[in-house]
Amino acid sequence: MPVITHDKLKKFTKDIFLATNSPEKEAELVAELLVRANLCGVDSHGVIRIPDYVKEIEEGKLKPGIQPKIVKESKVTALIDGQFGFGQVTAMKAMELAIEKAQQYGTSTLTVFNCNHIGRLADYPTLAVEKDMIGLIFCKGFPVVVAPWGGRARLLGTNPLSFGIPAGKEKPIIADFATSVSAEGKIRVKFARGEKIPLGWIVNSEGKVTDEPAELYKGGAILPFGGYKGYAINLLIEALGGALGTGGIADEFKGHNGLFIQVVNIDFFTPIEEFKEKIDRMIRKVKSSPLAEGFKEILLPGEPELIEMEKRLKDGIMVEEKTWSRIVEVANRYRVELPKVN
Amino acid sequence: MPVITHDKLKKFTKDIFLATNSPEKEAELVAELLVRANLCGVDSHGVIRIPDYVKEIEEGKLKPGIQPKIVKESKVTALIDGQFGFGQVTAMKAMELAIEKAQQYGTSTLTVFNCNHIGRLADYPTLAVEKDMIGLIFCKGFPVVVAPWGGRARLLGTNPLSFGIPAGKEKPIIADFATSVSAEGKIRVKFARGEKIPLGWIVNSEGKVTDEPAELYKGGAILPFGGYKGYAINLLIEALGGALGTGGIADEFKGHNGLFIQVVNIDFFTPIEEFKEKIDRMIRKVKSSPLAEGFKEILLPGEPELIEMEKRLKDGIMVEEKTWSRIVEVANRYRVELPKVN
Repeated sequence: MPVITHDKLKKFTKDIFLATNSPEKEAELVAELLVRANLCGVDSHGVIRIPDYVKEIEEGKLKPGIQPKIVKESKVTALIDGQFGFGQVTAMKAMELAIEKAQQYGTSTLTVFNCNHIGRLADYPTLAVEKDMIGLIFCKGFPVVVAPWGGRARLLGTNPLSFGIPAGKEKPIIADFATSVSAEGKIRVKFARGEKIPLGWIVNSEGKVTDEPAELYKGGAILPFGGYKGYAINLLIEALGGALGTGGIADEFKGHNGLFIQVVNIDFFTPIEEFKEKIDRMIRKVKSSPLAEGFKEILLPGEPELIEMEKRLKDGIMVEEKTWSRIVEVANRYRVELPKVN
Repeated sequence: MPVITHDKLKKFTKDIFLATNSPEKEAELVAELLVRANLCGVDSHGVIRIPDYVKEIEEGKLKPGIQPKIVKESKVTALIDGQFGFGQVTAMKAMELAIEKAQQYGTSTLTVFNCNHIGRLADYPTLAVEKDMIGLIFCKGFPVVVAPWGGRARLLGTNPLSFGIPAGKEKPIIADFATSVSAEGKIRVKFARGEKIPLGWIVNSEGKVTDEPAELYKGGAILPFGGYKGYAINLLIEALGGALGTGGIADEFKGHNGLFIQVVNIDFFTPIEEFKEKIDRMIRKVKSSPLAEGFKEILLPGEPELIEMEKRLKDGIMVEEKTWSRIVEVANRYRVELPKVN
C-alpha cells in the first residue's frame, strides 16, 4: 500500500486541482483540507475524494473559481448561495463572514445552499476557536441513506455536525460526527472486507436489524445514532441546514451540503480568560476520571484526530491501492507528475 | 392512586405557591408549567416538584418575586442573573428577551446563571415557535450524575436540550431530552419497583455495566446517550450552559440550571410560508415511511407528549400515593384547601 508524506501528498493534490483549472488559492485550500483529513485519520474525507471532485468539475457540477454570493444579509445573519464552487471555498468564506459578524455583534447565524461537498467539518469551527469564539456547523448531507426512528425508508442525510470550544492551556474541544450511527463509508469498508457490522447500525429493506453490511446496498437504511434522541438532532439539521438553508429537506434537497453556521463571541458573555480556565478545569477533571471497564484512557472530542495526526506526520499517510490507482488515473489524464511513494 | 383533573390540580398547585408568598403571576406560571408537564406525561417535571420548591423557598434558596437581572447585554446577546427567583420565571423572561432580539435582528444568543429548576424545557422553545421562530435551549443541570465517555466518575449533568421548529399544517417539532441515556428519575422509579434497567444505562462504582438500578445509588454513574457522540453534546452543554453562562462547569457549578438560549428568526433567511411547507413535507415523508420491525408508528419529537396530553386532559392526571401524600403534607402545613380527587 502506498505511503506518502503529507507534504508530498498535498503538493500532488494541489497540482491535480491546478491542472483542472482551479485558481491557485482554491487548489491550495482544497489540497490542505483533504490532506489534513487524512492526517487526522478521517480517510473518508481525504484524498479519496479527488476523483469525485475532478469528475464533478468535468461534468460542470463543481465550478472552480466561482465564489459564493450573499443572497440575503443583516448585521448578524446571512443566507449564502454557494453557486456550486468548491464546497471548501464556500464553507470557509461563510465561516469567515460569521466570525466577522460575531466579532462585531456577539453572535451570528448563517446558512448556505448550492454548496458542494465541504469535506471534514471540524476545519470550520476551528477557525472560530482560533479567534477565541465558539463555532458550530450543522450539515444537511445528500444523498439520503438514514431512516427515521421507527422507519426503514431512506429519507434523511447522515447530517453531521461539528463544534469547537476554545480552551486555555489544554487543547480546544473539537467535535465532528455524523448523526447517523455510522458513516456510510465505514459500512462500505466492512462490506468490502467481508466483515460483519454491529447490530443497531442498519436495518434491511424489510426493516429488520442485521449485522450484514451488504443489506444496506439492497435497499436497507442506516439508523440515527442514539435512538430517538439522535433522530431528533438529525431532524434539527434537516430543518436548519435544509429548510432554513433553503436547499430543501429529506430527499428533495439540491446540492451536496446545506449548511447552518453559528458563531458566538465569548467576550460578550464572560472574560475569555475565565471561560478558558473553566474549560481547562473541565477537561482535566474529565481526563482524570477513573475509568470504566474496557477503556484505557478518557479522550475529549478531537483528541483521537490529534493522536492520529502526530503519528501520520511522522510515518506518512497510507492510501489503499484501489484509491491510489483511481487518483493516479486522474493525475495521468491531466499529465500531473506523480509523487514519490514508499 | 389519586386521579385529579388538570384544572383542579393547577388551581391547587397555584394555591400552594400563593400560600408561600409567591406573587399571583408567578404562582400562576409555575402551576401552569408543572401541571402541563404532568399532562404531557413528563411526571418527573410535574407536581412532584412542589415539595422541593416549597422547601427551597423555606430555606431561602428559591426567592418568589425576585426578577432576573440583565448583567451584560448587546443588541443580540445577553447574560442574565436569575437571582434565584423561580426558574420558570427566569427562563420565560430570558426566552422572551431572546425572541424580542431575534424579532428585530434575526438571531440572538442568551445565557443565564443563578437559575433555579426551570421544569420541562420544551415550554420555552415553544414560545419561539409561536412567533414563527426556531428556539433552542441547552441546560447545564446540577447535580452531576453522568460519567464522561470511558469513565466512571460522576462529573457531568444530565444536561437536557430542547428545540422547537415551526410547521405549517402539521404540528411543530418540539424535542426535549436529557443528553444522558436516561433521566435519573426513571432509574429511581425502576429501583423503587425492584425492576432491572437495560444494560448501557449506568456503570457501577467499579465502572462495570450493570442492569441493577441500586448500583447507581452506591457510587455508580449514568452514561451519556449515544456513546461518544452524546458525550460530546453533553460537554457542549457544559461549555455553553455552564462556562459561557458563567455558573461553572462539571461539579463546580452553582445553582440548579445554567441556560444557553438561541433564537433564530426564519424570516431573515427564507419566507416563513416556504419554510413551513418544507417542514410539513418532511413530517409527512417521515410519518409515511414504511416501518422498522417492532414499531407500530413513526412519531416526530413532541408527538408522544401530545398523545399523552389528549388522554390526560380527558381522564385526569394520576399522581402516585407517595408523591401525593408529600404534596398534601405541604398543603396542610400552609392550610391550603385540598382538591377533590378520584
